[in-house]
Amino acid sequence: MKEVEIGTKILTDNERRAVKNREYFQSMGVTVINLIGSPGSGKTTILERTFRDLADKVRFAVIEGDLETDHDAVILRKTGVPVEMINTHGACHLNAAQIMDAAEKLDLENTDILIIENIGNLVCPSSFELGEDFKLGVLSTPEGDEKPVKYPELFVRARAVLISKLELAELVRFDMEKAREGLHQCNPVVELFPMSAFTGEGWETWCDWIIGLAGPR
Amino acid sequence: MKEVEIGTKILTDNERRAVKNREYFQSMGVTVINLIGSPGSGKTTILERTFRDLADKVRFAVIEGDLETDHDAVILRKTGVPVEMINTHGACHLNAAQIMDAAEKLDLENTDILIIENIGNLVCPSSFELGEDFKLGVLSTPEGDEKPVKYPELFVRARAVLISKLELAELVRFDMEKAREGLHQCNPVVELFPMSAFTGEGWETWCDWIIGLAGPR
Repeated sequence: MKEVEIGTKILTDNERRAVKNREYFQSMGVTVINLIGSPGSGKTTILERTFRDLADKVRFAVIEGDLETDHDAVILRKTGVPVEMINTHGACHLNAAQIMDAAEKLDLENTDILIIENIGNLVCPSSFELGEDFKLGVLSTPEGDEKPVKYPELFVRARAVLISKLELAELVRFDMEKAREGLHQCNPVVELFPMSAFTGEGWETWCDWIIGLAGPR
Repeated sequence: MKEVEIGTKILTDNERRAVKNREYFQSMGVTVINLIGSPGSGKTTILERTFRDLADKVRFAVIEGDLETDHDAVILRKTGVPVEMINTHGACHLNAAQIMDAAEKLDLENTDILIIENIGNLVCPSSFELGEDFKLGVLSTPEGDEKPVKYPELFVRARAVLISKLELAELVRFDMEKAREGLHQCNPVVELFPMSAFTGEGWETWCDWIIGLAGPR
């Protein structure tokens, strides 16, 4: 008979793999970000501009998750950043085993920050640990200022949230204070970055934060 | 020993319940629509205006699915349409058992069209049959014209797709022809309704279609 100590958390297979991933990433000295948001919230556009603007400051690599197509991988490869692509063919989130397979193909010794762009989905991906250092959420203004309290799964777990498409905020009647309140209700210590990858509003603050994460070279 | 005829599809528990739901809905003479789209694609706003505009033409009822909060149910109840609410507390889709529990609380004998507003998610809800007559997809212009081919799960299964937030199309560089191509690549016979619940563009065509579904009174 097997005994299980009371209070012991039983890890799922995915969680065990995520722990191994995290150990591996730490041994390589790479910071790993799990980027999560709805379809069309702006994840790829934000990465594209970030990679171009910080090309001489941060050594990025990307694992790009999509249900189908290499659409986003093609866009990001044009920035010169190494991209490994995962097509899940119907699965609504990435898992830790997929991440390890992809990570082994990247040159992590020469990477400061590895970004995992998860499947566009505000619900499922946040429940699956990948071995990341932290989750970075994206909420775009057209989605609505009430979404944090309606879809809290991601926002309670994210270290920071990018409030994207700021250029549309007025047009779509997005109330920034209401969004902030909802986000802080989910997560009192979440860091917020209101931004627009098009107008550049809030962009420098975001870039400075990312540079800080990469650490000294 | 049990024998299973080769070629027989083994139904999941959810599918069995969905079949029962469909029989029940048909016996009540109600048309049932499973409304699916990303968070913030405009589902609730479209329903709100549709219910107001067609108040004297179609007898609607709604089952409103949300992870948390009664935010959308409160909005829709103000239109006078009966609303049953399901909070899934983390689950990324509605299931057939939840639908039957909710449907039994509605007066379906005096309902022409029952709309099930599913969890905001472009991936998971389309895999779970609820007993609906058909799936109605929503794709909002800020999500991007490439989303049909990147997230085909819903679009291959939908009878019709509302292309919402048409008033933002130009600003967000949404290419309608590219979107149409992608949608028809997923599903050659899908019906498309480009529309704006704010400017009213395309609205009459949508309303006429819904009135046609309700049939003669």
